Amino acid sequence: MAKQSKTAISPTREQDYPAWYQEVIKASDMAENSPVRGCMVIKPWGYAIWENIMQQMDVLFKETGVKNAYFPLFIPLSYLEKEAEHVEGFAKECAVVTHHRLEPDGKGGLKPAGELAEPLIVRPTSETIIGESMARWTTSYRDLPLLLNQWANVVRWEMRTRMFLRTSEFLWQEGHTAHATAREAKERTMQMLDVYTKFVQECLAMPVIRGRKTVAERFPGADDTTCIEAMMQDKRALQAGTSHFLGQNFAKSSEIKFQNEEGQEAYAWTTSWGTSTRMIGGIIMVHSDDDGLVLPPRIAPAHAVIMPILKKGDDNREVMESARGLKDVLEGKLYHGRKINIEIDDRDTGGARGWDWVKKGVPVRIELGPRDIEQNMVSVARRDQAVNEKQSINREEFISEFTNILDNIQDTLFNRAIAFRKENTFEIDDKKAFYKIYQKARGYKNGAFVMAHWCGSQDCESTIKDHLSVTIRCIPFDSPVEEGSCICCGNSSSRRVLFAKAY
Amino acid sequence: MAKQSKTAISPTREQDYPAWYQEVIKASDMAENSPVRGCMVIKPWGYAIWENIMQQMDVLFKETGVKNAYFPLFIPLSYLEKEAEHVEGFAKECAVVTHHRLEPDGKGGLKPAGELAEPLIVRPTSETIIGESMARWTTSYRDLPLLLNQWANVVRWEMRTRMFLRTSEFLWQEGHTAHATAREAKERTMQMLDVYTKFVQECLAMPVIRGRKTVAERFPGADDTTCIEAMMQDKRALQAGTSHFLGQNFAKSSEIKFQNEEGQEAYAWTTSWGTSTRMIGGIIMVHSDDDGLVLPPRIAPAHAVIMPILKKGDDNREVMESARGLKDVLEGKLYHGRKINIEIDDRDTGGARGWDWVKKGVPVRIELGPRDIEQNMVSVARRDQAVNEKQSINREEFISEFTNILDNIQDTLFNRAIAFRKENTFEIDDKKAFYKIYQKARGYKNGAFVMAHWCGSQDCESTIKDHLSVTIRCIPFDSPVEEGSCICCGNSSSRRVLFAKAY
Repeated sequence: MAKQSKTAISPTREQDYPAWYQEVIKASDMAENSPVRGCMVIKPWGYAIWENIMQQMDVLFKETGVKNAYFPLFIPLSYLEKEAEHVEGFAKECAVVTHHRLEPDGKGGLKPAGELAEPLIVRPTSETIIGESMARWTTSYRDLPLLLNQWANVVRWEMRTRMFLRTSEFLWQEGHTAHATAREAKERTMQMLDVYTKFVQECLAMPVIRGRKTVAERFPGADDTTCIEAMMQDKRALQAGTSHFLGQNFAKSSEIKFQNEEGQEAYAWTTSWGTSTRMIGGIIMVHSDDDGLVLPPRIAPAHAVIMPILKKGDDNREVMESARGLKDVLEGKLYHGRKINIEIDDRDTGGARGWDWVKKGVPVRIELGPRDIEQNMVSVARRDQAVNEKQSINREEFISEFTNILDNIQDTLFNRAIAFRKENTFEIDDKKAFYKIYQKARGYKNGAFVMAHWCGSQDCESTIKDHLSVTIRCIPFDSPVEEGSCICCGNSSSRRVLFAKAY
Repeated sequence: MAKQSKTAISPTREQDYPAWYQEVIKASDMAENSPVRGCMVIKPWGYAIWENIMQQMDVLFKETGVKNAYFPLFIPLSYLEKEAEHVEGFAKECAVVTHHRLEPDGKGGLKPAGELAEPLIVRPTSETIIGESMARWTTSYRDLPLLLNQWANVVRWEMRTRMFLRTSEFLWQEGHTAHATAREAKERTMQMLDVYTKFVQECLAMPVIRGRKTVAERFPGADDTTCIEAMMQDKRALQAGTSHFLGQNFAKSSEIKFQNEEGQEAYAWTTSWGTSTRMIGGIIMVHSDDDGLVLPPRIAPAHAVIMPILKKGDDNREVMESARGLKDVLEGKLYHGRKINIEIDDRDTGGARGWDWVKKGVPVRIELGPRDIEQNMVSVARRDQAVNEKQSINREEFISEFTNILDNIQDTLFNRAIAFRKENTFEIDDKKAFYKIYQKARGYKNGAFVMAHWCGSQDCESTIKDHLSVTIRCIPFDSPVEEGSCICCGNSSSRRVLFAKAY
């Protein structure tokens, strides 16, 4: 492989973090901007990550009794009008379908025709239309709980977009459940937050802080919004998932009523919870480095690549057979219930070949030449280690250790992210110090997670937001009760909350 | 269970086939019409079938090297204008997005605002936008073949809709491949038709006739359209999948060019192929009966249901434990690579409980009472047999035989469908007889697949279509060369083609 002095990605994180992010995506061939405003094309390497996310989350959902369903892409305008009464500012930026036909425009082109009596909105969420179904499906307490989830595309018109993090169309899942009692719905809210936590920490190797949102940051219509927040390498927070307890608010606006065991009519208690392709943005920003994407083995589209060392003019049959044999035996194993996938790259592109796979973030790179075969060895490099670090390992030992190596990489990434977050999280009680840490923050440099006291007033919350673009990401569940004074106004406070700049 | 004289579905197939179809869907809780015009809600039982279809087809696709990707929901109007030059009548009925915002209308409602400079079309297919990407991704022969597939929702504005068979929004997969040579592209066309054939016959237990479309019935822009056609119980044909060889036509309109091994610029050769939620309509119409849905075990959301016989007031713990034990041991097995899923229904609704599962089409129904447990037996009913037919089987024997029973049901359904098609397929050489068979055809009664000679002229083809609403479904690959005269004009013909009324 080529020299290590130059990084594979330019600019580096330190030079220009947002540009680095775009370059990592480009160099790994995950996605690209499409000719359609605000939308992206998710290329096979990126989509395979999403498939792995969907498959593994879906198993966890179903273990809790959730069932998938599919609801229409379009929402009648009147549905949003109903909601608009309750929710100021909701769903204003959206794609509006007004016609159902194209006709020749007389100038060799086409024009919209067949105006609809009622415009249709391309779903920004399916909340209202799922609510309408839930209302029809719920008559008795025997119909509850109703545990639904949908994997789908949604559209929110965005003016400034960023691949995976903010695009007009994105892929997500939204869960909606209805229950006979508040207790059950609250338990479900936490159960799904637990599922998200387990998945994001174990599969994406992304440590998260669990907590609840402040009233100001709550989902509109929720009685309680719980979330998981992760630290990116620029020390900003990414909300990786949310789970809402909606009380009876949503049931009242959607008329989700049932006859309870005592024969009385009652409104259901509901929850909703969601995650999206944003998580892929999180994976990139938590793990990747100046040489490109770094993928946790649990969601990597390929667990390893085998690069046979072929000689021009030679009969390379033996090397290729040896490579295919290695691929077959490795793919015979399961890794956390998922089939192992090994790529063979027999291109003759010299050092560029190895760098391609570094940039794609494949956990393990294997080189295999005639000499390795003779000695029954394989040359192994790990994406969590320096690019030029290679280890020669006995072939059988490597095979038997392969899933352990993957687990070890997974753990390393998680522990590294934990350590990074720890290094960049501070308890601050001095207002000047608090301001200083965020005023200096630019891109990759500085910034932090700050645990500080807050009196609970929305005034203090919005003052800090206005001054520093810093928000209370959550009130962490594990933040201990302690005496303190608000970082903004100095009034008394009983616990610290998590402040950060956010995506 | 209740008496068998009355059928669970009313009307029966014979009384009113289209109404029977809707009732089967309703009674099985698969789907329902949504408040959004032309769209349906796919409920958990129906969506689980689609999930099983997707998972199993996806494995077959990937085995051939195909990779999934995701392209934008929206297509700029100009893309369709480009195509409109080539393709008369294409994509006229579609959902047109003209605005990107909702604003208060001053009357307490909302109105579309923020008119787009260029209208966007909700994809009726992703062909043009995938073509645009393929053109960008293809520079050298080394980039080929490009083997892409997308699972997504598409929209075609339909005036008359029918759940699963024809809805404005539906779910599908579309594959698009580009190759350096015509031979490779032709091979891929057939390879994907083979994949469809294998899947539809083996997993959906739906026998198909493979062949190519006539020029008139060809996909616009294709040099060759191959298809699989299945017979429904009303003897009409359902096209269950198509695979197109597009020659260089699509590459020319999308500018998919590459430098070949000789260093010359050349257009790629492309294919496309698709299947959709229509297949679920096919499953219903091929296998179901007057008692409701009948599901092939390979795609059933649940392979069996256990109905413990519980006594009011009794301590039913032992029965429930026995049921759960049976569920656990059965779910410990795999069935054709898929986890077995067993439902336990412990509702106390008497005979209605059993009928619910009959109507849902679950392959195996198991009753388990205190007496069965005492004798170490289970009472087993199969959905491919009469509803009141039950068999008492030793529990261990049943467990060890379970996947064989499922295979046996699968085979029975397939063989039954083959036999039905055979009974209702005729070779006809007499024009009067040909007309008679279709003129009488109404609903479930009469109608047929007819293998008849055709001279190859579009005039004859369209005459028959105009007179009888009967089309040439395909020129079957296995139709032998033989001398004959055209069923319409009497001119000479060298092979029979498949005629039928179609969905």
